[in-house]
Amino acid sequence: MPELRKDPISGRWVIISIERGKRPTDFSMRVSPKKGGFCAFCEGNEHTTPPEILAFRPDKDKSNIPGWTLRIVSNKFPALHIEGQLNRVGEGIFDKMNGIGAHEVIIETPEHNLTLSTMPLKSVEDVLWAFHYRISDLKKDSRFKYVLVFKNEGDNAGASLEHTHSQLIALPIVPHLVQEEIEHARDYYNYKERCIFCDIIHQEAISKTRVISENEDFISLAPFAPRSPFETLILPKRHESNFMPNSKFSLLAQILQRTLKQIDKVLNLPPYNMIIHTSPFKEETNDYYHWHIEIKPKLITIAGFEWGSGFYINPTSPEEAAKFMREAEI
Amino acid sequence: MPELRKDPISGRWVIISIERGKRPTDFSMRVSPKKGGFCAFCEGNEHTTPPEILAFRPDKDKSNIPGWTLRIVSNKFPALHIEGQLNRVGEGIFDKMNGIGAHEVIIETPEHNLTLSTMPLKSVEDVLWAFHYRISDLKKDSRFKYVLVFKNEGDNAGASLEHTHSQLIALPIVPHLVQEEIEHARDYYNYKERCIFCDIIHQEAISKTRVISENEDFISLAPFAPRSPFETLILPKRHESNFMPNSKFSLLAQILQRTLKQIDKVLNLPPYNMIIHTSPFKEETNDYYHWHIEIKPKLITIAGFEWGSGFYINPTSPEEAAKFMREAEI
Repeated sequence: MPELRKDPISGRWVIISIERGKRPTDFSMRVSPKKGGFCAFCEGNEHTTPPEILAFRPDKDKSNIPGWTLRIVSNKFPALHIEGQLNRVGEGIFDKMNGIGAHEVIIETPEHNLTLSTMPLKSVEDVLWAFHYRISDLKKDSRFKYVLVFKNEGDNAGASLEHTHSQLIALPIVPHLVQEEIEHARDYYNYKERCIFCDIIHQEAISKTRVISENEDFISLAPFAPRSPFETLILPKRHESNFMPNSKFSLLAQILQRTLKQIDKVLNLPPYNMIIHTSPFKEETNDYYHWHIEIKPKLITIAGFEWGSGFYINPTSPEEAAKFMREAEI
Repeated sequence: MPELRKDPISGRWVIISIERGKRPTDFSMRVSPKKGGFCAFCEGNEHTTPPEILAFRPDKDKSNIPGWTLRIVSNKFPALHIEGQLNRVGEGIFDKMNGIGAHEVIIETPEHNLTLSTMPLKSVEDVLWAFHYRISDLKKDSRFKYVLVFKNEGDNAGASLEHTHSQLIALPIVPHLVQEEIEHARDYYNYKERCIFCDIIHQEAISKTRVISENEDFISLAPFAPRSPFETLILPKRHESNFMPNSKFSLLAQILQRTLKQIDKVLNLPPYNMIIHTSPFKEETNDYYHWHIEIKPKLITIAGFEWGSGFYINPTSPEEAAKFMREAEI
């Protein structure tokens, strides 16, 4: 069973996933995912993954056989385990709990060679529906406080399989970074009686220098203080605290795919990480936090200064990045 | 001039270092440092670096010529600039300031093929003295609130030059992560009237499972909740809030080199980052914060989950890591 442990000095929790247990010599043997070999996520290989939690397929009576357009399965090497009761205990001055959680993989398409940028728009929309269904379901489990949806694209961004997929982890605690954003947003709201994200969107839409694109409901922009080059945010233009009550996924799919195409074009198919930040279950509907998608191309190495300070040195201004993105011919 | 910008949502500052300005195509061309080619840090090439800020050499009247054992120079591509007045301004709801700071490089030895683990112990001690002298000097500059000393060893840990060196950056603000540690330590002190680090050292010294080694003044240990495998802390056993009032560098050099030798042995010369965390200038001597060195071998990829949550998934338990380190034959 994995363990959640809290560092008393930083207040940060970590997952000690001993079953993934690595001995020192394992680290030097890290290999890149094989290109073109056997793929457990391809159609026909359904029996090689854990069983389906959910799948989109015309014949709804079938499962774990070909004929699907999207599949969700448990992660074969889960960071957290779904079975068991949450058990918080101390170890002297330290705090820990057993590693309860859900760790699922969204196989976005049966086609090995497609990506979120190149698949049909309808498939991108389905991926968003899949996130929505799984969050709605996991929310019913009272052990969980948050579901983090994320995607690692490319070996250098941490993807261990080439076939395009997203993941989600349901957690018994609200993650540190989300909590930090919520606290700042709440402070701002208490002071201004306005959502800080709404204010940012308003200001950016006037200045335009960091706006990348927009449609009726969404805006994509380079944040004022990005940690790394070409970091991009996608936000709903009207206040929405959680992903995503109105389920208008077609316009979100449109701007998401457009943004990824721009990134692929400008940076030549870089590895990237994508994350959805939304309000925790307990305060799902509120006036101060505003859900959003963060996309972070993996272009620079995080080194000692960043690890030690939490400061980031970014060699590309967001104004320049936004300009490149806007001008990309996609 | 670089710019410091604050992200209003996370509260995190970033350095937009536009002079290091990178165009999109630069990122795909990242090359590893050349092995065995020309090295600006080797003896005889002093004229190819910025002028010496400080050097250790028998003939103290000379500078910028061979005959030194350690040199400190400005970083040729500084993240922050030393000239100018601090100027905080708003840009609508955003906050920024000009990028004032010092960015220095400590060339730890003239010998290209030595490292902190393999150089004579006396040279390690000199490196610590160099940190001490530079912090003491930069403290006099009222624009600075903090000096972060760090080291990137190996290309994958962000070192752009092979020749062993450390760096320091003097900052006009206390870094986010240090501030966070200080706040937690202060909360603990307010509640317990004891330093949390002292309590940790006390508990670890009894349980022994995470202790790696110790000498009269220092202890090295695997923290209870490490972000990544083989993360290691070195702390003074008796309470000291800042690096390092009594200047007893010989015992620190001893445990530091021993720890690095253990890491090199167990993990086969891994890339790593090393950081010194100390109290900010304004509260240099206090009862709640305890300076320490963090060493973080670079063994795993930071991916979407970590970026989005601030949670880390660590596949090696600190108890196992400490055992490997203790048993390493060095």
